[in-house]
Amino acid sequence: MAIDFILLRTDSDSHARLGRITTPHGEITTPAFAPVGTQATVKALDPRDLHELGAELILGNTYHLYLRPGADLVAEMGGLHGFMGWDGPILTDSGGFQVFSLANTRRVTDEGVEFRSHIDGSRHLFTPEMVVHTQEQLGADIIMVLDECAEPNDRAYNEQALARTHAWAERCLHAQQRTDQALFGIVQGGVFPDLRRQSAEFLTGLDFPGYAIGGLSVGETKEQMYSMLDITAPVLPEDKPRYLMGVGAPEDLVEGVARGVDLFDCVLPTRLARNGALFTRAGRINIRNAQFARDAAPIEDGCQCYTCRSFSRAYLRHLFKAGELLASRLATIHNVHFLLELMRDIREAITAGSLQAFREEFLGKYPIIPHDVRAANREKRKSRSASHSTTN
Amino acid sequence: MAIDFILLRTDSDSHARLGRITTPHGEITTPAFAPVGTQATVKALDPRDLHELGAELILGNTYHLYLRPGADLVAEMGGLHGFMGWDGPILTDSGGFQVFSLANTRRVTDEGVEFRSHIDGSRHLFTPEMVVHTQEQLGADIIMVLDECAEPNDRAYNEQALARTHAWAERCLHAQQRTDQALFGIVQGGVFPDLRRQSAEFLTGLDFPGYAIGGLSVGETKEQMYSMLDITAPVLPEDKPRYLMGVGAPEDLVEGVARGVDLFDCVLPTRLARNGALFTRAGRINIRNAQFARDAAPIEDGCQCYTCRSFSRAYLRHLFKAGELLASRLATIHNVHFLLELMRDIREAITAGSLQAFREEFLGKYPIIPHDVRAANREKRKSRSASHSTTN
Repeated sequence: MAIDFILLRTDSDSHARLGRITTPHGEITTPAFAPVGTQATVKALDPRDLHELGAELILGNTYHLYLRPGADLVAEMGGLHGFMGWDGPILTDSGGFQVFSLANTRRVTDEGVEFRSHIDGSRHLFTPEMVVHTQEQLGADIIMVLDECAEPNDRAYNEQALARTHAWAERCLHAQQRTDQALFGIVQGGVFPDLRRQSAEFLTGLDFPGYAIGGLSVGETKEQMYSMLDITAPVLPEDKPRYLMGVGAPEDLVEGVARGVDLFDCVLPTRLARNGALFTRAGRINIRNAQFARDAAPIEDGCQCYTCRSFSRAYLRHLFKAGELLASRLATIHNVHFLLELMRDIREAITAGSLQAFREEFLGKYPIIPHDVRAANREKRKSRSASHSTTN
Repeated sequence: MAIDFILLRTDSDSHARLGRITTPHGEITTPAFAPVGTQATVKALDPRDLHELGAELILGNTYHLYLRPGADLVAEMGGLHGFMGWDGPILTDSGGFQVFSLANTRRVTDEGVEFRSHIDGSRHLFTPEMVVHTQEQLGADIIMVLDECAEPNDRAYNEQALARTHAWAERCLHAQQRTDQALFGIVQGGVFPDLRRQSAEFLTGLDFPGYAIGGLSVGETKEQMYSMLDITAPVLPEDKPRYLMGVGAPEDLVEGVARGVDLFDCVLPTRLARNGALFTRAGRINIRNAQFARDAAPIEDGCQCYTCRSFSRAYLRHLFKAGELLASRLATIHNVHFLLELMRDIREAITAGSLQAFREEFLGKYPIIPHDVRAANREKRKSRSASHSTTN
């Protein structure tokens, strides 16, 4: 087996689990959050920063790395680990999600998905066999099957996409040649309970070493997302890790863990950081605001990250206003620390049997961004990435 | 005295000196190169990086900090040291050079220099008294007098500017109130030997704790620059540090030291790094070039910087091509390390009495960028900064 998963403890008040994944590049204590290193770098951070922050797993994006610098080049340089100088566990996605969200024109057939690169318009075809091969070249510890990401509320599209996703999952399993990588299946089914259940059951039958829940946090409400987790997680085998893809809002980490999720990844902390939006336990602040111009306090009192131990809000605001590179770095350090620290607190609470109290306390203080504001932000990003080539 | 300078050794084959400056924030072993932190940050680096690189002095730009975030705000945040979290020695320039090179319209009178901000067009007046006060608010260990930077080959302009520069130097001395900052005088005089000599003599008479040589590396040839150093350095007192402003090309550091210079500063290593131009002992390379796409070697074999110890040329090229923030950081670490390591080698050679051999060996391998190429690059930068507001 490429990875080993041990369940250390199950919460008595919720479906939360404490566990440990052992990979060829080290251990991941779960529940865990993985910062995203889209193009073989977690934006603005270096591997030493990631170790210092306590990151135990990072993610790379197959779609981006396949297009630039190319998976063969990465393989030549010792795989993603050697190329980017990160010796800890890595997970790569299959590229499917980016093809559906970033690539220009695309055409899905049973064979695979044809698309044009967002960088230079060149034409490419992702098949299940090909994305497994590409991920074998990249060499991550955990790799993902190719799936089709349907619009979450479109029943007919989801039924059709699910059949394809399941067929592709089988083909991915057959295509796998390396034995030192764990290939995870991906549950799809939009916001439809029966499709989600059907998908989880089908994939469980294929006996993957881990299972992802995909197609969430793509525009549906939080209630819909949580309800899909409530339905899906219990169908998945207890002794395999469960990975909620692309989810990283603090409240979703807490709610996801309580519903039995072990792994999360999201660009949220790094992307927000570059916009000056910083996490605190009392909610997000934007450090560019004039109110912080003469504020000698750290981003968050008591925060133990390098940024908060060393710099004031006034200094950070200055760096952002002056367009300095250090702004992104210091803000990213804080935001990634915030989520990793939140996961440490969650794991501690599970250990202590006090997750329910922690959850209530945390959610009592952390204001959730309303659905319509999130939807508007999502639209803004979409229209930006339609005009530029964005990557995160 | 705000600073103390000890001459530890004088080279027998050249005018090179080994010394030590003690400041309120620590010691600087000379000859030393100071990385530039224009806007209260050495671009892309944090204070831990600077300590790890062995930087013993960094520079801040009064013009930029006065405009943004404002010297009063910096003072409120504990001065530059507290604001930017750097506990080592800092030097601030007077802002004069930037007024003459960056600000929009400007009008020089005996009183001072009136200009419009390159950021928002607002109108400001720098007088000798005002720049001393501003630098007292910023709180650097070494501060500079206001000087007028004339076109180096214009005799009439240099004569007129020199009289003003000398009068301003006296006014700066009288304006100084803090006793924990060393105010350096600045020798001007363009490329005219008699004016340089006259300026050095006049300023020496004012008994500054240190002397800068200004108005060089502004378009004159290297021969002219070296010849001005040959003329100026011997006139300056032996027991005071000598600072060659704005000079940082590797060959100029070696040649400057051999002519008796103790301190240098320049944006060159950081600015080049952000463009992908990297120092090696065999000359500069541009890491964006296709030839490095599959190059598994570090930037320079044997280099002990974090970047070279951890990453390949192929990875760095990928980061630059992909527009990743980490590219600037890793390239800056290497280039700053290169110059600081060069200074360490120079100091070792002075100690060992082998500077002449080191100089010949270094210059034999390091190709110097021809004057016309440097002049063309300077013009390109000028036209860029005329259209955008640049800062480094």
